[in-house]
Amino acid sequence: MRLIDHLWLKPIITTALAEDIGQGDLTTQLCLREEVECRAKISSGEKGIVAGLEVVKAVFEEVEPELDVRFQVAEGDRVRENEVVVEIEGSAGGILTAERTALNFLGRLSGIATLTAEFVDRVKGSEVKVVDTRKTTPGLRALEKYAVRVGGGYNHRFNLSDGILIKDNHIKVSGGIRPAVELAMAGRPHLLRIEVEVETLDELDEAISAGADVILLDNFAPEELRKAVVLAREKNPHILLEASGGVTLETVEAIARCGVDMISIGSLTSSAKSMDYSLEII
Amino acid sequence: MRLIDHLWLKPIITTALAEDIGQGDLTTQLCLREEVECRAKISSGEKGIVAGLEVVKAVFEEVEPELDVRFQVAEGDRVRENEVVVEIEGSAGGILTAERTALNFLGRLSGIATLTAEFVDRVKGSEVKVVDTRKTTPGLRALEKYAVRVGGGYNHRFNLSDGILIKDNHIKVSGGIRPAVELAMAGRPHLLRIEVEVETLDELDEAISAGADVILLDNFAPEELRKAVVLAREKNPHILLEASGGVTLETVEAIARCGVDMISIGSLTSSAKSMDYSLEII
Amino acid sequence: MRLIDHLWLKPIITTALAEDIGQGDLTTQLCLREEVECRAKISSGEKGIVAGLEVVKAVFEEVEPELDVRFQVAEGDRVRENEVVVEIEGSAGGILTAERTALNFLGRLSGIATLTAEFVDRVKGSEVKVVDTRKTTPGLRALEKYAVRVGGGYNHRFNLSDGILIKDNHIKVSGGIRPAVELAMAGRPHLLRIEVEVETLDELDEAISAGADVILLDNFAPEELRKAVVLAREKNPHILLEASGGVTLETVEAIARCGVDMISIGSLTSSAKSMDYSLEII
Amino acid sequence: MRLIDHLWLKPIITTALAEDIGQGDLTTQLCLREEVECRAKISSGEKGIVAGLEVVKAVFEEVEPELDVRFQVAEGDRVRENEVVVEIEGSAGGILTAERTALNFLGRLSGIATLTAEFVDRVKGSEVKVVDTRKTTPGLRALEKYAVRVGGGYNHRFNLSDGILIKDNHIKVSGGIRPAVELAMAGRPHLLRIEVEVETLDELDEAISAGADVILLDNFAPEELRKAVVLAREKNPHILLEASGGVTLETVEAIARCGVDMISIGSLTSSAKSMDYSLEII
Amino acid sequence: MRLIDHLWLKPIITTALAEDIGQGDLTTQLCLREEVECRAKISSGEKGIVAGLEVVKAVFEEVEPELDVRFQVAEGDRVRENEVVVEIEGSAGGILTAERTALNFLGRLSGIATLTAEFVDRVKGSEVKVVDTRKTTPGLRALEKYAVRVGGGYNHRFNLSDGILIKDNHIKVSGGIRPAVELAMAGRPHLLRIEVEVETLDELDEAISAGADVILLDNFAPEELRKAVVLAREKNPHILLEASGGVTLETVEAIARCGVDMISIGSLTSSAKSMDYSLEII
Amino acid sequence: MRLIDHLWLKPIITTALAEDIGQGDLTTQLCLREEVECRAKISSGEKGIVAGLEVVKAVFEEVEPELDVRFQVAEGDRVRENEVVVEIEGSAGGILTAERTALNFLGRLSGIATLTAEFVDRVKGSEVKVVDTRKTTPGLRALEKYAVRVGGGYNHRFNLSDGILIKDNHIKVSGGIRPAVELAMAGRPHLLRIEVEVETLDELDEAISAGADVILLDNFAPEELRKAVVLAREKNPHILLEASGGVTLETVEAIARCGVDMISIGSLTSSAKSMDYSLEII
Repeated sequence: MRLIDHLWLKPIITTALAEDIGQGDLTTQLCLREEVECRAKISSGEKGIVAGLEVVKAVFEEVEPELDVRFQVAEGDRVRENEVVVEIEGSAGGILTAERTALNFLGRLSGIATLTAEFVDRVKGSEVKVVDTRKTTPGLRALEKYAVRVGGGYNHRFNLSDGILIKDNHIKVSGGIRPAVELAMAGRPHLLRIEVEVETLDELDEAISAGADVILLDNFAPEELRKAVVLAREKNPHILLEASGGVTLETVEAIARCGVDMISIGSLTSSAKSMDYSLEII
Repeated sequence: MRLIDHLWLKPIITTALAEDIGQGDLTTQLCLREEVECRAKISSGEKGIVAGLEVVKAVFEEVEPELDVRFQVAEGDRVRENEVVVEIEGSAGGILTAERTALNFLGRLSGIATLTAEFVDRVKGSEVKVVDTRKTTPGLRALEKYAVRVGGGYNHRFNLSDGILIKDNHIKVSGGIRPAVELAMAGRPHLLRIEVEVETLDELDEAISAGADVILLDNFAPEELRKAVVLAREKNPHILLEASGGVTLETVEAIARCGVDMISIGSLTSSAKSMDYSLEII
Repeated sequence: MRLIDHLWLKPIITTALAEDIGQGDLTTQLCLREEVECRAKISSGEKGIVAGLEVVKAVFEEVEPELDVRFQVAEGDRVRENEVVVEIEGSAGGILTAERTALNFLGRLSGIATLTAEFVDRVKGSEVKVVDTRKTTPGLRALEKYAVRVGGGYNHRFNLSDGILIKDNHIKVSGGIRPAVELAMAGRPHLLRIEVEVETLDELDEAISAGADVILLDNFAPEELRKAVVLAREKNPHILLEASGGVTLETVEAIARCGVDMISIGSLTSSAKSMDYSLEII
Repeated sequence: MRLIDHLWLKPIITTALAEDIGQGDLTTQLCLREEVECRAKISSGEKGIVAGLEVVKAVFEEVEPELDVRFQVAEGDRVRENEVVVEIEGSAGGILTAERTALNFLGRLSGIATLTAEFVDRVKGSEVKVVDTRKTTPGLRALEKYAVRVGGGYNHRFNLSDGILIKDNHIKVSGGIRPAVELAMAGRPHLLRIEVEVETLDELDEAISAGADVILLDNFAPEELRKAVVLAREKNPHILLEASGGVTLETVEAIARCGVDMISIGSLTSSAKSMDYSLEII
Repeated sequence: MRLIDHLWLKPIITTALAEDIGQGDLTTQLCLREEVECRAKISSGEKGIVAGLEVVKAVFEEVEPELDVRFQVAEGDRVRENEVVVEIEGSAGGILTAERTALNFLGRLSGIATLTAEFVDRVKGSEVKVVDTRKTTPGLRALEKYAVRVGGGYNHRFNLSDGILIKDNHIKVSGGIRPAVELAMAGRPHLLRIEVEVETLDELDEAISAGADVILLDNFAPEELRKAVVLAREKNPHILLEASGGVTLETVEAIARCGVDMISIGSLTSSAKSMDYSLEII
Repeated sequence: MRLIDHLWLKPIITTALAEDIGQGDLTTQLCLREEVECRAKISSGEKGIVAGLEVVKAVFEEVEPELDVRFQVAEGDRVRENEVVVEIEGSAGGILTAERTALNFLGRLSGIATLTAEFVDRVKGSEVKVVDTRKTTPGLRALEKYAVRVGGGYNHRFNLSDGILIKDNHIKVSGGIRPAVELAMAGRPHLLRIEVEVETLDELDEAISAGADVILLDNFAPEELRKAVVLAREKNPHILLEASGGVTLETVEAIARCGVDMISIGSLTSSAKSMDYSLEII
């Protein structure tokens, strides 16, 4: 299974390199009079989950196709501080010019994978899936959602056209849960389920009656959440239940125990810190 | 002074909207049978510094040029939790379709401004400038560096072509500090200064002798840093001194007191969490 | 409800105009020494369903923003031969330069809407939905699927990422229906249903047992199709059933009577003739 | 002679693949846990002329450069139903992801070549050339005009800048045939001929007198057409004559016998049905 | 008649501004703390023909749509040194940021128009047309060919697809003038004439016999040229004759007197100096 | 040291080829029935400095990757008239299609390098650097500035964001030299120097007092220039001095003798004639 698709990755990398290189890497051009061959290694500056190795490879090869990029760990591996994850051999100029862009991708994706894995660890043993949201960095959604999968999480819809999620604001402007759900059911492409966000047990009841396939239980306190799960499963045993709203590493386990199918967590992508890596010529 | 330039902002916004909208906002298209006019407000979910208001406006107007977007606070304002920062009036469909992209930009930029302001606060009273790095999100560098300025920080070079920074790896492949600096001095565009990264007092000495305009003191312990500052100022009173390397909110003040001119901090952009905002139709 | 989204429509129109105009409309530039104002009308050359009015307007306005484009019929209207559908007033040069591109869009979309409406008419009275496929013209999928909706049809998935449809080739390479479905169920985004293509009653049985949400009954003879529907509904009353394979205006009614939920028809988009329109300056 | 030029073909293919793949081929990614190698064949579903083999090859190679694509027939060959036209060997994932886009191009181009060949067959024995128009699918003109050539037809001008064709609307706004032709003659690039559309014998007379190089005889009844040809050749033996207007397979032969040089037929591109092909993994 | 087409001009201007502005006009942003309104004028630094006024306007408006740009002379006017050609009023920041890009376009186009006009002046009184070539600046061909027209010249073909010109190299690889011309005649779109480059009277004879519509007489000495013209007109009174090859302001008149229809001159675009303009805030 | 960076060169070449090829090289496609292999050589038509060899190679390879392009001279070499600079072997079609675009780049870049070298020759023996400006052809700045370096010149800033140059217009709108310089010093990225344009000795004095790092002495007469240099060096021995304003081959030597560090010359790029080259199939 190919996790990262070169067709959409290419323009992201081109844009990133153009942004970082500008009219050329002046320092490298000035200091390196002649082509020098060298070896370099990328090492972790802290422990975490490695994500983005193929992106790193693609960045170096975009700058200099002849570079030999060898992974020292596998995608998704858990590394300690100071572990070598990649070795590169070839033109020193190419390596130095690509360095920062490669590390910026690697750090960001590994940061997301690492944070996701922490959440996944907390709910280990349950059937609950840790799921991402659309709170991603503009322009990097596909990569960030990929990093969530590397960390053991699952993806919610990719964008506004590949899933139907009726939220409170939609309900307000369309006159209630029932009319909104019915309109959606009448017109949807038949491969898409309909999810409805609810904030109370009454709304939950109405959404299931109207025909929702999936319920997003937004900001329910644990006790209420447990009630909601029981109620929902009674009304429709096929219903899928997703909990959401300010979930943290501290609260995720209690939520998982309430019996929902999925917990969606915006901070996987919106609050992950970049993992620290550095490149050294050896 | 126009802080955000529409010429380069437009393609970033177009890409972000294309990514989030895909072939169309299915939920909104299905649930809103007719054009509905409404009012909406964007509120902060936590305290922080607001950055990105013009981006928010541009996102909404790209989706629906007729939307009336009114700022309730000024760029750079410090807000509390639950403060209204923007009001929007017009087509409900346009507002709902643009919502997530607008909030993703606003959250990320405000997060960076907020973290920057925390660092700036810690060194208040000194002349030291808090400076960013190239550890930014691929594709968003111009916006993130703008957010650093909103938070009271300063920008280091934008990319590899508008500044000369000779780092350890350059020194290795060009045979030492002196040859690297001399090559750079001979060929550089005359509006660019030359900065050299050093890790020891000996290297500092060599870099200044070779003619460096700016020194990057990398990972010096405070005591060493103080010595380095004295030594450097003696050799060349015009020298500019920048400290860097794992700077945190806890350590920044001590570093500032060592007498450097600037402290560069990668985490301003690589580790800032998105600030929480939400949009509600009212 | 906005049916056509200007964000993705703009580049399609720009590309089409660039293709048709090249370095400029030489004939118009040479023959029209001075700016001339005029009125023009677009008339149907045959009867059919009008689709693409907003595209026509966008094409003329892209060439010349000052043109006044007025619809004389509504989108989706059924027109006779020689009926005026659009009037345009303004610069003769702009009208003449935009003419062919506008008519090419209008003709193609109306052709699809008209053919779709013929199929929909044949199954009137049943609950069956006429559904399109991915057999669309490269580059125009969003517009062609929109034209299907104008004609009264429904859309199947837009592309390979917003729906899961396990076809015979997938089954072959993944070792059978059951393993394919189970792998898909384990990893899918939870808003997406899983559809499986089957060619025999045994395959149908296996697909439903494995957990398919939707079944694509490919090339079943009417009698077999009726059996399949009964069998499927018995095993899972929630199952959705789609018939497909060489459906024509002659066979669609019999298929509809077999009790499936949807009939998908590639020829809606792959075999529709452009509807004839012409522009005349008056 | 290279018929299809990779420089302009590449972006068309990239756009088409992006449209069909979206964020990735979900079904294939989910069902194929590991890279599987396989062989596949593309077969015709009906008889016709094959056009677009190089496009098919380029589509598969864009998705997966390692795929081995082997043509089993030559471009322009006439095939029967169920004939294998292409074999592909390599990564199953690559083949499945590229399948639909490749078939959509192949079907559309073969459909045009096949319809063109039918018209060409009808006028066999005469010197008359079957010529296309600008009634092409937006974005695909170069490919569709190429398919016309594969089918034995000839190309009219590509766009508004590489040919001068003064039509009725131009004549109206520039005050008559004579002033329009004279203006065009005065300013045209000298490698371009001037064609004038006429609807009566009087207009024909005026156009030739004014200096037209080519006459487009629009919608002349066969008898009138014969007269026009005689009249025109008398006035200027070097004149080129093109007949046009609602030409069908039934009428084309009679028109050809009237002695014109070319017959232009919009339906070659605007009304061709896609030829049916399917891909099977073997 | 619209001379410059905004559809293809826009991307050229966007690219040029992106190139000159980079991440922002730092000097202007730093020095102008607040928005200042001002007036500015663009003046000629030498005498010449003004070309590119609409481009100048488009550049300023792209940077700042509110700027009021007023032409003080008309396109194609002959100006003296120190004549004001454009006045601009509005945001000082916008004016300063757009200045260099606007002047670069204006200078280059005016330089070409001025040089063209010098050549046109030398052949005044004859019927000979001064014609450009494809020796243009990569990326600016449409603008440079427009400038030639402003200067009173005519355009040769725009690119390799809108004219057929069989040159010595084509003749070499296709086995002679006759086979080359015959192949071209058999396959060409019927609105295109065929031009053949010849270097001797024998080649001239062969080209006309083979059916060429236009002859390019390359590098003929005046005496030979005169003979060639006579010979050619005898063989085919409809033939068009173009002289070319190292034509200078000194030689052009003599060549014109030889009786050719056109003289093509590469230096119109390849050797024109930019005309000097400057912008001053007043 | 890689002088030309393939990352930004690629789109320039693609645009240039698209501009020149349009929908295809018609002449070549028509005249070359079959693929022919051949050899060709590019020769100089006049003496000069060769610049752009790598661009030539990239153009040919973009059209036909299999072409074998061999340099017969080195970049920066001084050649005589009729010297072979490049040999190409491979598909005749590819060579003929790429010819004009390759020569247009080579001619323009060599023209700039040649003119630059003439200026550099005139100041040989002094320490003065010949420097370019932003008076470049829109879209080709990076290439043209590269050609200046090949000719022995140096580059001024690339664009408005990688250098601070306070010119007369900035001074007018910001209220004087001192406030302008102080604002710039307060906000500039610390790797950028500040240059101030002055026209009198008083302005020079003020600019240095305010803290300028570099002075642009605009249009000073030689005598005044000498005074200015003495005055400036007295006030600040570290100051860099640049002379500018209508510098010609006749005046450059006298200016150099005045003791400035750099002389910037707009005509290097704005007035260079293309160097003449031709391609011949052998």
